[in-house]
Parts: sequence; C-alpha cells; structure tokens
Amino acid sequence: MKLSARNKIPARVTKINYGEAIANVEMDACGTRLVSSVTVEAVKELGLSEGAEVTVVVKASDLILATE
Amino acid sequence: MKLSARNKIPARVTKINYGEAIANVEMDACGTRLVSSVTVEAVKELGLSEGAEVTVVVKASDLILATE
Amino acid sequence: MKLSARNKIPARVTKINYGEAIANVEMDACGTRLVSSVTVEAVKELGLSEGAEVTVVVKASDLILATE
Amino acid sequence: MKLSARNKIPARVTKINYGEAIANVEMDACGTRLVSSVTVEAVKELGLSEGAEVTVVVKASDLILATE
Amino acid sequence: MKLSARNKIPARVTKINYGEAIANVEMDACGTRLVSSVTVEAVKELGLSEGAEVTVVVKASDLILATE
Amino acid sequence: MKLSARNKIPARVTKINYGEAIANVEMDACGTRLVSSVTVEAVKELGLSEGAEVTVVVKASDLILATE
Repeated sequence: MKLSARNKIPARVTKINYGEAIANVEMDACGTRLVSSVTVEAVKELGLSEGAEVTVVVKASDLILATE
Repeated sequence: MKLSARNKIPARVTKINYGEAIANVEMDACGTRLVSSVTVEAVKELGLSEGAEVTVVVKASDLILATE
Repeated sequence: MKLSARNKIPARVTKINYGEAIANVEMDACGTRLVSSVTVEAVKELGLSEGAEVTVVVKASDLILATE
Repeated sequence: MKLSARNKIPARVTKINYGEAIANVEMDACGTRLVSSVTVEAVKELGLSEGAEVTVVVKASDLILATE
Repeated sequence: MKLSARNKIPARVTKINYGEAIANVEMDACGTRLVSSVTVEAVKELGLSEGAEVTVVVKASDLILATE
Repeated sequence: MKLSARNKIPARVTKINYGEAIANVEMDACGTRLVSSVTVEAVKELGLSEGAEVTVVVKASDLILATE
C-alpha cells in the first residue's frame, strides 16, 4: 500500500494509557518520545502492546515547525 | 514556552520547495525523511533554509499508527 | 498494512489541479464529490491520474458532524 | 451556511461509544463504515442518536490517499 | 446547520494571497490576526474578498495550548 | 521560540472536563468560547487550571471558513 502521507517514522510502543473512547499510545522513535491519541478500537484491531513495532504516519500539513 | 502538543522531534532542513502560498519543507530526523507543508510566510518569518535546525511539533491526535 | 485511521473510503480520481507545492485531487465516492489537498510529490509517487482507484484515509479526529 | 471544507458526506449514525470527554460516533455512508471522535458535549448539542442523519464534514487537507 | 466543531470565531477578511491550488486568507478576529489555508475553489465558492465577515470553524482536537 | 503555526490566540481557561486519556479545556477568548481537546498529561504538564492565561496555537490548514 502506498500512502500520500509524507511522514513515516519507525517507532516502538512503550506504554498505552486507555480511556473509554480514546487511548494514548506512547512510543520511542530514535530516542524521541512520541504520543498518539487513537481510538481504543484501533489499538485492539492492530493488536498493539508494549514493545510492538509500528510506523507513525503523519500528513505533511500536520507538522508545525519551531525554531529557537 | 510550554506546548500541549506531545510530539517534538529534532530535525534538520534539507530542502525547501516553494509554491505561491505553501512551501514544502523537507527535513532529516535521525535518518528519517520528514516533509512539512507550511505557509511561505512562515518559512520567511522563521528564516528557514537548508541546514537549519528545527523542532517538528505535532499534536497527538494527528499521528496515525500502522503495523505490517 | 493495518492503519489506526478508522475511515477508509473507496473513491475514483476525477480531476487533478496542480499548484507548485500542493495539488487538489478531486474524486467521486459513491456519488459524493471529495477533494484532497496533497503534495505534488505524493501525486507523482502514487502515479495518480484521472480514473485511478484510491482509498481515502481519514483519522476519526478529523471528521466534523453537521445536522440540519 | 457555506463552508470552505470541500468534503460533505451524507451518513447515518449506527452507534455511539461514550467516554468521559470524547465519544466515538459510528456511521454508515453508502455502505462504508465511518467513525468520528467528537466531544461528548457536541453529541448532546446535536442530539445525535442511532439512526440520525448527519453530514460528515472534512477539510481537503485532512484526506490521505492510498493506492495498492 | 449545527456543527460538532466546538470553536466558532467571528472574523473579518483583511487580505487573500492566492496560489494555484491553495489560498491563504488573512483575517482579523477581535484584534488578533488569523490565517487560514483553504482551496482556491473554496474562496471562489464563498465569494470571499477583503472586508467579508466570516466565521472561523475549528475542531477541538486541532487547538494546541501554550503557556509561558 | 518561533512557530510556523500562523494562529496564536490569547485566551483564559474557564473550565476543564477530565476524561481518562483526554481532557476538554474550555476557554474564553475576547468573549468567544473556545474548547481544546488535549491529553490529560498535557494539562498536568502545563499546570492548567481555571483562570490560567494561555495562547491557543492552530495551524492555518486547520481553519475552516463559513459564511451565511
């Protein structure tokens, strides 16, 4: 499958915090901590758990740039 | 300044493709290519150019997870 | 590939309007007109053209609901 | 009311999963399952329930395209 | 029309910068400058021009909070 | 810190509704009610509470425009 989304970051799941509707999935990507809020349904469907290897996909229009 | 956005990824600008309204800023983050579409105005205000060090900021709700 | 994104809509490309950085891809999905703004780079990489079959992927957090 | 958002998809609510802050609204749109994560407040204000007819509104910049 | 989007900010258009695919619409909202990137098609359909009164609509999941 | 995000709206927190994973932060900005859905973690890290002064940051690509 090819995606128009320009950003595909390899990461490893480190923790999952479940709410009723949404879960926050914490990851490590090359030493940087990432957090993704997804539906609990998605976590189950993808079978995510601590240690799982995932690809973080983000659209180019969702990246904000910051400089000092 | 503290941001509610949970994802802050250090990156280096490698190329900027300008349109009239929007520019696509290409970056390298730990060996992964990133692309951000921002307004041309923002590129000028931040003084972005090849080699610039930036922080990519993304909200947790904008990260999609993919598994094989 | 499995995606956490909850919305996957089959569509057919009907027209592509190119800018320098961004292209607007028009589609038909079950009689509803859809438009996606993606990078020109993505259009080329996916080899999109009129008549192409695609899947529109959208995160659950990006859908606004409206009622009369 | 006219909206700049380019995507307006007619759908019917099939199920609502409530969390404390966010609810996931499941819908059927021409045979395709859709899911929208909105605030619980919005669900109440719009009076959404199973069977309700809604219009799903999405910005063109939020549509990712995928090809096989 | 009722919208699930929780943020509706009254604003006045002050300038429009056109690209080929995307236009940046500048606005004033209670003394704060706002900028929206929308398709050129949307600008035409809504008949936007300098001085036009609009409502800026944003989903709750798209607001980042910052503190000093 | 300079941000590419074009919209920075001063606001004051009026109420916080906590879920398990996500909290909805209600604010007043020049008489307009705003709501932001952020992770509970972010609320704690920023030390948000009723009366706190914040800056709402939104990307230009996330603003939808509406006209009557």
